[in-house]
Amino acid sequence: MPPDLASLHGGSLLLAWQLKDKHVLIVGGGDVASGRIESVLVADARITLIAPRAGLHPLTQWFVDNSDRITYHDRLFAGPEDLADVDLVLTAIDDVDASRRICALCRERKIPVNVADIPPSCDFYFGSQIRSGPLQVMISTNGRSPKLANIIRRKIEACIPEQAGEAIEKVGELRTKLKERAPGVGGHVGRRRMRWMVDVCSSWDIGELALLDDQMMARLLDEGWEKNQVPKLEDVGGHAKKAGTHHPGPYGPFFPTALGFVAGAAAAVVFLLARRH
Amino acid sequence: MPPDLASLHGGSLLLAWQLKDKHVLIVGGGDVASGRIESVLVADARITLIAPRAGLHPLTQWFVDNSDRITYHDRLFAGPEDLADVDLVLTAIDDVDASRRICALCRERKIPVNVADIPPSCDFYFGSQIRSGPLQVMISTNGRSPKLANIIRRKIEACIPEQAGEAIEKVGELRTKLKERAPGVGGHVGRRRMRWMVDVCSSWDIGELALLDDQMMARLLDEGWEKNQVPKLEDVGGHAKKAGTHHPGPYGPFFPTALGFVAGAAAAVVFLLARRH
Repeated sequence: MPPDLASLHGGSLLLAWQLKDKHVLIVGGGDVASGRIESVLVADARITLIAPRAGLHPLTQWFVDNSDRITYHDRLFAGPEDLADVDLVLTAIDDVDASRRICALCRERKIPVNVADIPPSCDFYFGSQIRSGPLQVMISTNGRSPKLANIIRRKIEACIPEQAGEAIEKVGELRTKLKERAPGVGGHVGRRRMRWMVDVCSSWDIGELALLDDQMMARLLDEGWEKNQVPKLEDVGGHAKKAGTHHPGPYGPFFPTALGFVAGAAAAVVFLLARRH
Repeated sequence: MPPDLASLHGGSLLLAWQLKDKHVLIVGGGDVASGRIESVLVADARITLIAPRAGLHPLTQWFVDNSDRITYHDRLFAGPEDLADVDLVLTAIDDVDASRRICALCRERKIPVNVADIPPSCDFYFGSQIRSGPLQVMISTNGRSPKLANIIRRKIEACIPEQAGEAIEKVGELRTKLKERAPGVGGHVGRRRMRWMVDVCSSWDIGELALLDDQMMARLLDEGWEKNQVPKLEDVGGHAKKAGTHHPGPYGPFFPTALGFVAGAAAAVVFLLARRH
């Protein structure tokens, strides 16, 4: 069914921007900047940080002292020369005029830019984010309510299975091993590989996938891929330990009913016996 | 506490890219392209679509026929002239050589580009996404497992309160009305506004925020903002109808225990009465 055209508006294009070995300029060293540094390091970029030392947030200072991927300059933004060979710019300073000037220089050079707190000077926004190993989740309310974005982030965090990051890591390894065993891009083998991986991910739950080790992966490929089937965790030497985010209580879902039954029976016995005597 | 530096790698920079009134070129008209068109329309961009009519997916054809924001060319990508005044390029075609050529032309011109199925030709990836009005959520496994991204998306979808999109819309309106009543950028009033909005979002639950109408917003501002407090929903004329994603069952959490009690009592009575006769 085609979507409701009238509803297709007012949003953003959510993207996972690739920064591996790219060069990011961060201007400013306060609280906001320290968060930006962390997000950019996660994406494997090199950082140049320009900010007077006096204003560095302790966490920013910690990053400068401990990360070998940050080049630090103890000064203000100087001009266009600071934008040479820069792939992305993030500013988080209080000087609105300087912010707007940096934005204009970036736009002339087609360098994507985010100026904290000045939406019209932003080519992109940061939403509220969750990270667990290779799993990343972003929640955006498109500027309507950062607080609600945070509240929803916490709700989402609580319902992502604890082992999701681990499971994704293991499935990624299994996929790499499968590609080594059955190489080739696209075509019949590509489709068969994709189908089998989908079958594995659909048949095993996330807690089970997270338990995969090298030995189990080898057996899964031998007894699953080679025979075009999906064995169970136990069939490849694993032992399920059920875990998840939803707990029906320590005694299982039928405990309340059973407890009630026993209590009811006991009450009736006491009542009837008492009447007898 | 500073983060574990060693864990900060292997990810992407998740962004909400702004495309309002920007110009996006989509090359290709198949299944993947139809999804891209929808995502780009959500972000309020103009689209130029280049793809031979014979290969159009029915949904792509539907968008071409129904959206006045799409300019359609029934042909293949022609060359650099197709990139004039383009802000973002998405390709989804089977011709790997043509894809790579388009990517190279975009990179020369510093136009961000995503080439479906060729990761090295992508400046950004699309994750698995959820949209509910102004709420947008993206789930990325950083290429490890698209299937797990989908499984986790469904889990997240199930735990986002049904009224979240509506609540965000209403809070956005309340914020706009508050800014009209107490204008000014930053400073004391800016901080007081932000604090009060945070208090409202923290004190009311999402289902309550979604119930806000113009009249209730006016009363909330009169009796809340003006008196520097946060009234309850009932105090501004609303009626709570509790709703959420977690249902303890139609009879409440104590029903199983009560049912068991009655059943147990009945069984004991039958048993004892039967013994008596």
